[in-house]
Amino acid sequence: MQSLKFTGESSSNGMVERDFTVGEVPGVLWSPASGAGRAPLVLMGHGGGTHKKWPAMTGRAHRLVTGGGFHVAVIDAPGHGGRPRTAYDEQEIAALYRARAAGEPEGPVVVRYNAHLAERAVPEWQAALDALQELPEIGAEGPVGYFGLNMGTAIGVPLAAADPRITAAVFGIFWHESLAETAKQITIPVEFVLQWDDEHIPRESGLALFDAFAAKEKTLHANAGTHKEVPRFEADSAVRFFARHLGQRATSSA
Amino acid sequence: MQSLKFTGESSSNGMVERDFTVGEVPGVLWSPASGAGRAPLVLMGHGGGTHKKWPAMTGRAHRLVTGGGFHVAVIDAPGHGGRPRTAYDEQEIAALYRARAAGEPEGPVVVRYNAHLAERAVPEWQAALDALQELPEIGAEGPVGYFGLNMGTAIGVPLAAADPRITAAVFGIFWHESLAETAKQITIPVEFVLQWDDEHIPRESGLALFDAFAAKEKTLHANAGTHKEVPRFEADSAVRFFARHLGQRATSSA
Repeated sequence: MQSLKFTGESSSNGMVERDFTVGEVPGVLWSPASGAGRAPLVLMGHGGGTHKKWPAMTGRAHRLVTGGGFHVAVIDAPGHGGRPRTAYDEQEIAALYRARAAGEPEGPVVVRYNAHLAERAVPEWQAALDALQELPEIGAEGPVGYFGLNMGTAIGVPLAAADPRITAAVFGIFWHESLAETAKQITIPVEFVLQWDDEHIPRESGLALFDAFAAKEKTLHANAGTHKEVPRFEADSAVRFFARHLGQRATSSA
Repeated sequence: MQSLKFTGESSSNGMVERDFTVGEVPGVLWSPASGAGRAPLVLMGHGGGTHKKWPAMTGRAHRLVTGGGFHVAVIDAPGHGGRPRTAYDEQEIAALYRARAAGEPEGPVVVRYNAHLAERAVPEWQAALDALQELPEIGAEGPVGYFGLNMGTAIGVPLAAADPRITAAVFGIFWHESLAETAKQITIPVEFVLQWDDEHIPRESGLALFDAFAAKEKTLHANAGTHKEVPRFEADSAVRFFARHLGQRATSSA
């Protein structure tokens, strides 16, 4: 097993931030500054073209850590953040830029490329989770949540299907084509975020992905607005979702 | 103007309950027992076949009063609670029971009968709101919310379209046929609750009603489950929705 190496530590706003690596993969672990003991872990997947410390990640982490008392971990996806790109990565990124420049739908490229990235990312996540569970403040027995939209869903759905340690998940903002079959294997509680006026993802495609989850408890949160206009209150909702399902008590920031 | 007459008062669980009448219409006003001063008012509409103190009403009121510091008022709909039924009421209720006994869809009867009830109920609600706003702890300037599912939506959508004092609303669990045109006039923030596996309301009909609202901020909460299985956490979500839009601070019960 690859062990976790801490490479840096800082603290602000009630949150301790520790950089780490597991093998070649860099990650970050945020924890309550109050020095909380053992607490459940929430894994977060970042979106395409961003990285583990993108503002959406630090913002959601802050809510989860200070509002729910969770540990929160993010790793850089393959080809993202400081990680090297393969020739295939470069080719797909170029294809995406070409589609955008031509005003063509980016869905086909994103769906295909993210399915490829998920194949590389799932074993990396599982190795990171193995290593994180060696830490005394996390442990191997606690429940684990997963929170990722966009590419974070493209990677998170196959991860949750493959790894029974994940017991609750927030997904959303993705097409159904590459994920619906895998979603049918997922029975853990799911909160699913969709943008009602998404200019990239057809409404029917997002609804079809939500419909595919086999979870007995699943909730769709569809908000008016375009692809990038997910309201911030959905992050607060995710804190409460994980608090309900991972056994923490949320404090309000409504 | 018809004035409000208090007819009874009791107190429990952090909540003062005052029965009242406005003209012939009986209602109930719940307020914080802590003797809070002026606070925003949330009107709640009950479902078909129930009344102002049905458990769903008292439960939601308790969350709104103790979790959000609101005043909460419900009036009995025409033909409901202790109110007399007209010959037409009896005829439609008989039609509903016949449809149920025959295993036929109840939607056509409910849609038609509730549209009729809404015509009678909207002026009653407006008179009740006039009278409630005379109370010093409510006042005429404060924002007003509306929360009603099922028949509470059939009445609430035309009420919100007719009365600009209502500035935020939680609706849901209803067909689109009789309401979609009116919903197109509604621009206040809306949270809309839908049951994904509703055995009475086709999924497409509920989605079409959500789609019809002209609100720039609207959120669909669709939960797995049948018509009557709306999860209790949706009541907590409504408290936070009203806290955001009516300017209160919610305390968590997640």
